[in-house]
Formats: sequence, C-alpha cells, structure tokens
Amino acid sequence: MAWRDYILNLTVEGIRKQNLAITDTKVVEHLLRTARVGFLGLVDGDEPYVVPLNFVWHRGAVYIHGAVHGRKASLLASSPKATFTIADERGTIAHPVPAKTDTAYLSAMVFGRVSLVEDLREATEALDAMLTKYVPGYYEKPLQSGHVESYVSGAGSHVGVYRLQAERVTAKQNAEDMGMMYYPGRTQRADLRETVDNKRTVEQSV
Amino acid sequence: MAWRDYILNLTVEGIRKQNLAITDTKVVEHLLRTARVGFLGLVDGDEPYVVPLNFVWHRGAVYIHGAVHGRKASLLASSPKATFTIADERGTIAHPVPAKTDTAYLSAMVFGRVSLVEDLREATEALDAMLTKYVPGYYEKPLQSGHVESYVSGAGSHVGVYRLQAERVTAKQNAEDMGMMYYPGRTQRADLRETVDNKRTVEQSV
Repeated sequence: MAWRDYILNLTVEGIRKQNLAITDTKVVEHLLRTARVGFLGLVDGDEPYVVPLNFVWHRGAVYIHGAVHGRKASLLASSPKATFTIADERGTIAHPVPAKTDTAYLSAMVFGRVSLVEDLREATEALDAMLTKYVPGYYEKPLQSGHVESYVSGAGSHVGVYRLQAERVTAKQNAEDMGMMYYPGRTQRADLRETVDNKRTVEQSV
Repeated sequence: MAWRDYILNLTVEGIRKQNLAITDTKVVEHLLRTARVGFLGLVDGDEPYVVPLNFVWHRGAVYIHGAVHGRKASLLASSPKATFTIADERGTIAHPVPAKTDTAYLSAMVFGRVSLVEDLREATEALDAMLTKYVPGYYEKPLQSGHVESYVSGAGSHVGVYRLQAERVTAKQNAEDMGMMYYPGRTQRADLRETVDNKRTVEQSV
C-alpha cells in the first residue's frame, strides 16, 4: 500500500455544516503537507487521549515517530483506531453583534488505524520525508537506512516509526472575511458607524 | 464550583520524560490563557474523535461553545469524559546527527468531564471571557445575559456553552536551544565546521 500511488478518500460524510466542507483534495493535501503539528487522538478505555505531534503526510498516510514505551505507545499497541486532527486558525472575524463573532480556519481530520512500521525502507523514506519537511536543505545527503536501522531497532533503541493509514479524511474551511477580520484597536463603534456611512453612500448614489 | 477560586491540579503523573514535565502553574496558566486553539478529544465507541476549538480558560475550566446538534454534541451528551490538548510549537532544533533533530514546544493536557452550562450567569461570564480573549477591546460594553439567553436558549437556538471542568492538568516543555534553532539556509555542513572551529578555539585558548 505504501509503495503505490494513493487516492485521498476525502469525504463530506459526518460534517454537519455541509457548506463548510472542503471537496478539493488539493486544498487538503496542502494543509496536510504544511501543518507543523497534528493532534493524535487515541482511546484509553472510556477516556480519550490527545497528543500533539510533528508528522509527515506521505503516500496517503500520516507518519509519526516516537517512543515505543509510554502511554501513547501502549495505547497504539492495544487500540489502533486513531483520529489525527490538524487546524490552521486564521484569525477572528469581528461582528457588531457578539453572537456573530466567528473564526476563520481550515481543518482536517484523518481517520484510520495506526501500526508500527516494520519495513526498514518504508521507515527510512518516512523519516527522510520528515526531515525534508522540518529542516529543508539542512542535510547534505538523504537519510541512509543504516542510520535508521540503529535509530529504530538498535540495541537500547526506544523509538519507533508509526503509520496512520488514512481510511478517510474530512476537511472544513471557514474562509476569512478580509473586511471584517479583527485587529487590536478595531471597535464595534467604528464598524457600526461605517455600516451607517455605507448605507448613506448607497442612498446618495441611488 | 465555577464561582469560587480554583486550584489548578497540575500533576506530573503519567508523563514518561519527567525532565520535560512543567511544575510551575504560572507557565501552564499562561499557555491556557493565550493558546487560540485547543483540541477536544472524545470517545465514540472504540473510535477517538478530535475536534479543534476556540476556547477560554476561566476559573479552572475550559469553556467552549458550539452546536447542540452534530457529532460533537451527541458525543458530549453520551460520553462526557474528555481530554483537551493545546500545544505551542516553537520551532525545530537542528542537529548534525539526523536522529537528534528535535522540536521545541510547550503543551498541556486538561483531563475532565464536559457538561452543558445551564446557569445563564455562568454562560454569560464564560462567553464574555471568550470575547475578551479573541476580540479584546472591540465591544463597548460587557456581554449582557439577555443577549446570551436568546443566543443559547432562544427559539430556534442551536448553540450551547459547555464546561470542561479540569480534574487534572499535565504539561510538558522542551525549551528552545537558541544556538541550534533551524532556519532556512542553515546547513549540517556549516554546523559541523563551526563545531570544529569551536574546538580549535578552545584548544588554542588552553
């Protein structure tokens, strides 16, 4: 699976406000490739567990790495169903009516199952993609599998590479309203005055 | 509970790397008050659900608001155990050895139970705190409970205010190493050269 081209299974199913659903896979791909932190949700009995992680979106999967010990690792071993959520918050949309204050954002949820990557070639490719994402241009050469081998399976190694295979992805966007974005110093009073002025201008021009 | 002063139950329990655990409540309070987005984790059967939300940390609780319909709302009604995670990513710490590339961050997890806020005074206070957080100085007057009443319980209203009472909070920090933070153009080669130069300088000064 990881070695052939993939199809992003972007669905609008389960999104309440269908007008916010993103249907353009390019928008979602861009978000998945550029977001620096994602939030991995796991289930621990009847309690949810949400951990922030660096990650790389690669060949239709979310790759993460981390300790093979600890709460996250033991949850991954016992309960591989996962949700991986990312959000790009783009500021607050002001409105003279308090209840109409809103947030501009772009978000995505990746649903699937997590497994430890056992294939050294796949682990190397994923970690190299991660380095390309977080420290682009820093290393002279691509990551060598020999280096990864000692890293993920060497004596005393405590680190694993995990793959969350994306079974389905949903994404939502509430676009900026550039004329109404909040900035420090913006006031309700000025916005109300401007509305009145605009109305006058429209009336005068009629 | 919501009306008296609270004690932040900050614990280091469950944190694997104890050297990263934050024990200073002021650091955590600041993060909880300034983070713009938090990730609410809920459990849906054996599947986790993680939703990004604006929120306000107020009197020892995370307040959110949102639709009383939809997946989040029905989960909140059926399974009130929640985890609310926030993270402030502060950049990548470069290292000539790939496996030692690291991320600087500050993160917190709030564990507790979620309930719908029924008290109008509490709902008003929470929403007013939220406006103060996201659009400081915008409104001329504090939010009026009459406005909130129509907002959260008016005819055709579909919006609720929810409180996640913080039963315990954990927080972690991996501080920046300012001399090693990645920036575009930084290279492994230059860092290795500098290490050699530093060594020479030390040797010459001995």
